[in-house]
Amino acid sequence: MKKHEIMHWQIIQSEYIHQESWLTVRRDRVNLPNGSTIPNYYVFEYPHWVNTIAITKASQFILVSQYRHGLQSINYELCAGICDEKDITPLYSAQRELLEETGYGYGHWQQFMVLSPNPSNHNNLTYTFLATDVEKISEPHLDETEDLRVHLFSLDEIKSLLMQGKIIQALMAAPLWKFIATYQQKEI
Amino acid sequence: MKKHEIMHWQIIQSEYIHQESWLTVRRDRVNLPNGSTIPNYYVFEYPHWVNTIAITKASQFILVSQYRHGLQSINYELCAGICDEKDITPLYSAQRELLEETGYGYGHWQQFMVLSPNPSNHNNLTYTFLATDVEKISEPHLDETEDLRVHLFSLDEIKSLLMQGKIIQALMAAPLWKFIATYQQKEI
Repeated sequence: MKKHEIMHWQIIQSEYIHQESWLTVRRDRVNLPNGSTIPNYYVFEYPHWVNTIAITKASQFILVSQYRHGLQSINYELCAGICDEKDITPLYSAQRELLEETGYGYGHWQQFMVLSPNPSNHNNLTYTFLATDVEKISEPHLDETEDLRVHLFSLDEIKSLLMQGKIIQALMAAPLWKFIATYQQKEI
Repeated sequence: MKKHEIMHWQIIQSEYIHQESWLTVRRDRVNLPNGSTIPNYYVFEYPHWVNTIAITKASQFILVSQYRHGLQSINYELCAGICDEKDITPLYSAQRELLEETGYGYGHWQQFMVLSPNPSNHNNLTYTFLATDVEKISEPHLDETEDLRVHLFSLDEIKSLLMQGKIIQALMAAPLWKFIATYQQKEI
């Protein structure tokens, strides 16, 4: 017997159970192709997110560290943020966030990767950019709730941090490992 | 002036605003080290998750494809699941999920990576295992709401799927890129 095609689910009813700037939860009642029903399927709605592998002219990688309350731990991260409504493109968001959080800018930018935080329950994507030859052009401008440090690491140090589990956020580990897999036999 | 250490936030009040098997949301009122307060900080509580890079004796990588309602798209994925309360270890969960979803088992297993889906608002981790020399030992046993396909791919095909953005879930792309970065000059 030939297997049937995988089908999309059909939304029968949909409502927001929570709508706040940092948490929007939609509850869908869905019919599955096999005839069964899931009465309460929850989807988190978010704007798209961005992060950046930013490398200076001296081949130093710019990471930040900050406290993260979900895991209640302090982690090394790529500079990251959300696409504000007024941002014209994800590239603009990424450049804005890098300048605000680290004071670095200029350089050469390209889109490097697109990922989903979790396609089962997030409706958004994360765009990763690769920025080379960036330069320090100002001091960071942080929000009142932001308390972060800027760090410069060599590629060998980045590999070591990844291997030690000190860059633990999947949306950041994935592009860094892709960078290593793609560029390790090339000049950066 | 020496910069102060990054401090943890202090939880002043904490309550669950939603508690269901697939969605547990905690709302914390937190004090920040700089004196400011965030009245509503939301954390998703989940059990730990697992996924597996499973490779057959013929060096074929086992992926699954299924509809994902957050993105409303059909994606290629590593076999993955959650750590049930009755599972004795994450390894056990990963072996159980691989057998249930694909019918593959046996082989040699090692923990390969630990990631966070999002340390800012998830309290759980994802354990990735590397399973080599796995064998087909039964038919899949799927839940009523599961409709998935099992696929066998070569490493070159995996690289191609990653480059085309067809393996988009960050918790799966990260270990696959790590595998490629780590093993591409070695025998698998």
